[in-house]
Amino acid sequence: MTKTILNLLTTFDGFVAGLNDQIDWIGSTYPPSDNPDIVGKDVKPWDFSAFTSQVGAIIVGRRSFDIGIEKGWFKNNAYGSSPIFVVCKQKPETASKDAEFHFITEGIEVAHKLAVKAANNKFIYIFGGPSIIQQLLDKDLLDEMWITVAPILLGKGIRLFDNLSERRIDLQQLKVEAHPNSMYEVHYRILKTK
Amino acid sequence: MTKTILNLLTTFDGFVAGLNDQIDWIGSTYPPSDNPDIVGKDVKPWDFSAFTSQVGAIIVGRRSFDIGIEKGWFKNNAYGSSPIFVVCKQKPETASKDAEFHFITEGIEVAHKLAVKAANNKFIYIFGGPSIIQQLLDKDLLDEMWITVAPILLGKGIRLFDNLSERRIDLQQLKVEAHPNSMYEVHYRILKTK
Repeated sequence: MTKTILNLLTTFDGFVAGLNDQIDWIGSTYPPSDNPDIVGKDVKPWDFSAFTSQVGAIIVGRRSFDIGIEKGWFKNNAYGSSPIFVVCKQKPETASKDAEFHFITEGIEVAHKLAVKAANNKFIYIFGGPSIIQQLLDKDLLDEMWITVAPILLGKGIRLFDNLSERRIDLQQLKVEAHPNSMYEVHYRILKTK
Repeated sequence: MTKTILNLLTTFDGFVAGLNDQIDWIGSTYPPSDNPDIVGKDVKPWDFSAFTSQVGAIIVGRRSFDIGIEKGWFKNNAYGSSPIFVVCKQKPETASKDAEFHFITEGIEVAHKLAVKAANNKFIYIFGGPSIIQQLLDKDLLDEMWITVAPILLGKGIRLFDNLSERRIDLQQLKVEAHPNSMYEVHYRILKTK
């Protein structure tokens, strides 16, 4: 069975980007951890390719797609060679050749069904952004969240969790891992309410 | 040297309470962790008293104080016997006898100076809420954050980090600890920008 997994980076105050989509903080240097559990130990660095190698389809919102095209994120199989389903109101006029994009105008449920088929039992990687995450949570289509937390407060920006329904969703911890650059990674299973 | 430490519980989507100050989720049962690093291992449960025993003074905002009085949080030395400095615009008409309260109407900096003196090299415990945290961060008066994250999404509520200035604050990881009830605890040192 394929799993639908949100995997992204957020600041400790819960932002995925600054107010003007700034993500310069993502590539910046963070303070070395002063956590006695990992200082001086041989902690393996974060390996994103170990994740993408298990991915069979990607879903991305239109805004994240546009930013990604502008920044060249999707070039050179940066997220593997999986088809990328772009949830959008209208198809773009000119198609990018950066990856195999499919533009889905029939909503998140249709996009997810197509992604399940394409994934062929591998993971469906939810790229973001917040609107896609909100829709997937509201429709109980998200199975896991793998969130890496950057050791900064941005103060203002675009929130990972915004405009969710007022509904308690229970999470089950699958992994909590400290990294030497003061980041940490937490994995949750999303417990279905239906 | 005394340290000023924020210590509180937040949901994974960053709320300290629901929209109507609900905190019923705090005492609820969470799913058992399915994290192979801790399942079946003798992980010590979260020990809040180990923290409060090191505390020499407490700072609390007016709203959190009012809620705490209503709910009886401060009774029976629940947070130790330290003096509690309540930052407020006006002193309440009738004083509670639940603990040793000092009402400070001259702002957060005055409250912090008094707390430093009272703490006598022990910790100053920042109880919250968000407005107090925002003021302490803006004035570079907070040294550490010890945040325990509950494994739920609430969707809507009162955010831990809200109305901060648009200013990047770097954090240094001091501890990341998974708990068997799917919670985790993260400790950060706040790196001063001044």
